Amino acid sequence: MRQRIWLESRAALTPAAPALSCNGETWSFAALAARARGAARALQARGVRPGDLVAALLPNGLDFVALIHAAPLCGAALVPLNLRLTARELAFQLRDAAPRLLVHGPAELARLAQAATESLPELMRVPSPLADVTGGELRAELSLEETAAVVYTSGTTGLPKGAELGFGAFAWSAIGSAFHLSNAPGDHWLACLPLQHVGGLAILYRSALTGAPVTVHERFDPQRVSDELDQGRVTLVSVVATMLERVLDARGARPAPPSLRCVLLGGGPAPQSLLRRARALGFPVATTYGLTEAASQVATLSLDRARLPGDAVGRPLFCTELRIAGPDGQALPVEQPGEILVRGPTLMKGYLRRPEDSARALRGGWLHTGDIGVLDAAGDLRVLDRRSDLIVSGGENVYPAEVEATLREHPAVSDVAVAGQPDPSFGARVTAWVVLRADAEASAGELGTFCRGRIAGYKIPRAFHFVRALPRTESGKLLRRALTPAP
Amino acid sequence: MRQRIWLESRAALTPAAPALSCNGETWSFAALAARARGAARALQARGVRPGDLVAALLPNGLDFVALIHAAPLCGAALVPLNLRLTARELAFQLRDAAPRLLVHGPAELARLAQAATESLPELMRVPSPLADVTGGELRAELSLEETAAVVYTSGTTGLPKGAELGFGAFAWSAIGSAFHLSNAPGDHWLACLPLQHVGGLAILYRSALTGAPVTVHERFDPQRVSDELDQGRVTLVSVVATMLERVLDARGARPAPPSLRCVLLGGGPAPQSLLRRARALGFPVATTYGLTEAASQVATLSLDRARLPGDAVGRPLFCTELRIAGPDGQALPVEQPGEILVRGPTLMKGYLRRPEDSARALRGGWLHTGDIGVLDAAGDLRVLDRRSDLIVSGGENVYPAEVEATLREHPAVSDVAVAGQPDPSFGARVTAWVVLRADAEASAGELGTFCRGRIAGYKIPRAFHFVRALPRTESGKLLRRALTPAP
Repeated sequence: MRQRIWLESRAALTPAAPALSCNGETWSFAALAARARGAARALQARGVRPGDLVAALLPNGLDFVALIHAAPLCGAALVPLNLRLTARELAFQLRDAAPRLLVHGPAELARLAQAATESLPELMRVPSPLADVTGGELRAELSLEETAAVVYTSGTTGLPKGAELGFGAFAWSAIGSAFHLSNAPGDHWLACLPLQHVGGLAILYRSALTGAPVTVHERFDPQRVSDELDQGRVTLVSVVATMLERVLDARGARPAPPSLRCVLLGGGPAPQSLLRRARALGFPVATTYGLTEAASQVATLSLDRARLPGDAVGRPLFCTELRIAGPDGQALPVEQPGEILVRGPTLMKGYLRRPEDSARALRGGWLHTGDIGVLDAAGDLRVLDRRSDLIVSGGENVYPAEVEATLREHPAVSDVAVAGQPDPSFGARVTAWVVLRADAEASAGELGTFCRGRIAGYKIPRAFHFVRALPRTESGKLLRRALTPAP
Repeated sequence: MRQRIWLESRAALTPAAPALSCNGETWSFAALAARARGAARALQARGVRPGDLVAALLPNGLDFVALIHAAPLCGAALVPLNLRLTARELAFQLRDAAPRLLVHGPAELARLAQAATESLPELMRVPSPLADVTGGELRAELSLEETAAVVYTSGTTGLPKGAELGFGAFAWSAIGSAFHLSNAPGDHWLACLPLQHVGGLAILYRSALTGAPVTVHERFDPQRVSDELDQGRVTLVSVVATMLERVLDARGARPAPPSLRCVLLGGGPAPQSLLRRARALGFPVATTYGLTEAASQVATLSLDRARLPGDAVGRPLFCTELRIAGPDGQALPVEQPGEILVRGPTLMKGYLRRPEDSARALRGGWLHTGDIGVLDAAGDLRVLDRRSDLIVSGGENVYPAEVEATLREHPAVSDVAVAGQPDPSFGARVTAWVVLRADAEASAGELGTFCRGRIAGYKIPRAFHFVRALPRTESGKLLRRALTPAP
């Protein structure tokens, strides 16, 4: 289904309405659309053509938002890169995605972009902001079937894979979200999480569709978020548990401002204590279970329950279906825990250029999340456990296999296992259990230093336990759950 | 794009929430879904298969609503028939649509259905309610590209044509409407117009998508509408100008209840005096310009302007585009009147089995409405005139060509022209100018009686003027605007 470019449609509808506030400036939808057109022409002038990918290594801000909306104007799909990755990790994703060019921010990000593309001399690096180029025919329409963005996520193998998300996926995510949380004339979102994350990206697409303005913080600062909420303009904010906790810490006993009608809390299971604390202060916390592969929200607590006790993440978005599956893939009855399967219009098309991984993840038309959950008779989902091997630390996903593969490269390491240990602030702390070679030695500090530059800082184990052997089954499979803090 | 059957998705999401109130009963989404499943199985048992059409000659009520949602469960598209048509008119539409079967209401409607199908002996007539049949595999998904309904509308030729509207058209109409008028937790629609009309049908699809309950009145009763509004449950109501006027008459000076947040006023240009009167009493009137061929709303006044003076119908729904075209089809600048063209995801696929009419109506990808309008610099549409030959009388469209063709069949009529004359209550009064044969005689009463049974009552001229000749151009083209009340 073809339709008008979203930001163009929105700018025609409410041109003077505020679209974006960041860095102390506010841009109307007309101004943002003009900026997006300029960026799109600049991309075209550098050879971007329909079907191309455009990678972005950009901080939260106007240029990033303009690029999100520039991409469809020249028929390109966006590849938003995580700024916390190392040059080596970025190089892998860039080689994998093979974008037409890489748009990057200044200073540190320019150096990072250079380091990441050292082994990719043919990849053009373009500093942001993109010069406003005049002329050039832009597209007027997009197709819901086209890819809007390729968002990288890791799998059990530790190999990052690009989830190809269509405009239809973001549209139905925005629609389902609006039907779930309702949309009201005074709505105003605060985006203080990285826009590279699917949850941040979704806010921007949603804004173009519904017309609600977005305030974007360049980086997460709990005091600034707290002050922003107290100003009474923001009505909805997306956070992960760690962020909410730090905002509450910054506020002390100050209750939630009455203007705030929804705190959308995603990024992994939220601690009960945090939910109680926030709700006691009047914060309407709508917990959500989301996935990159489903353009963010899958199930979200309805607003009439956001102030009530409970740890369910609520019901699926309109047109999204959930199934709890047993070990053989059979649908389990209510109250029986199993793997969470997801089906519906928000699902990715697949992993970029990985037909086998895609077919496996989407077998039978259902996304197999690997997460463990349970549905109750009322249709509410509770997430019991993110996929057994996934560590959610401060809202970032860490895949043990990737960390283990990195540590195995160290000459002193014979065997290694990585798992999350409970952490009151970050949800989970990345922890490694290491078996050293008989003739070798290595300290925790040395292994940490070895990881630095190879994997992003948030993936580096915070604690190393040196053990003689790892708990394994007879067939050699690691018993990750048998890893204990002090073995 | 495939997605779960809407009512099933909604019933899974908010099963206990009220979906429909009518005839003193309230049905939850779970109960309505169960009823729709029963009706779908009954259709299947009578041979309805994917791709079939199912015609409905039903009064407003539960059975009609259940049938709307039953159709996609067996892959059929609905053909809602106007209850005010004559058997002859219905027979034409049934022969044209060639549905698998005709579901009809009791008593008068059963007799009308029988009369309409006399010349179609092979067409099965099925009385409503459809018996609940168990067993039978129902569809779980629909495609946005599939036809949801075929809604008949007439053209300049007077020949009714079935506008094929896909689920995507109704989905984007509901989405655009929700983004335009916002959707809130306490929303509750009142449908007091015929559900056969695209504006009535759209309310029901919208309800399944957003979860807002609908109260359906079996027939329009101004006092009952007024009482319903005063009860404070209804927040949105769809009406045409005549209906609004009669409701205001019934209320006298009683101001609008505070619970009412939107009166969606469609069905032809609204008199300024009516807008002033309603708004003075506090009614938030959002005028809308809609078309059967665009699944109802095309442009709608935003709610923040619904209490302000002005006769603009506002801006297009999200993703709908408007163009004002000159005589050669060229786009005209702002403030210049011309033909209203419409493009976007709510457009019909075409007229059923009329590729030439469809190609002409949708040439260049734009729906050519024939209506005259003007866009101002802010993007607001004002409708200056419905297509010159269209008479909008009490919210029903009357096409002069059809009435003229009927009167020409009378042996005493030599020439005839039909046009609308201003009417304070109905907007326009159908009026005929008749030239009798030299040797013949016929009274106004006789011609009116001749029309009865041939065309619907609302199409029959309320006044006949007998003239010696009609105003025509040298080439013989009728100068409809030169017709005067007392020639």
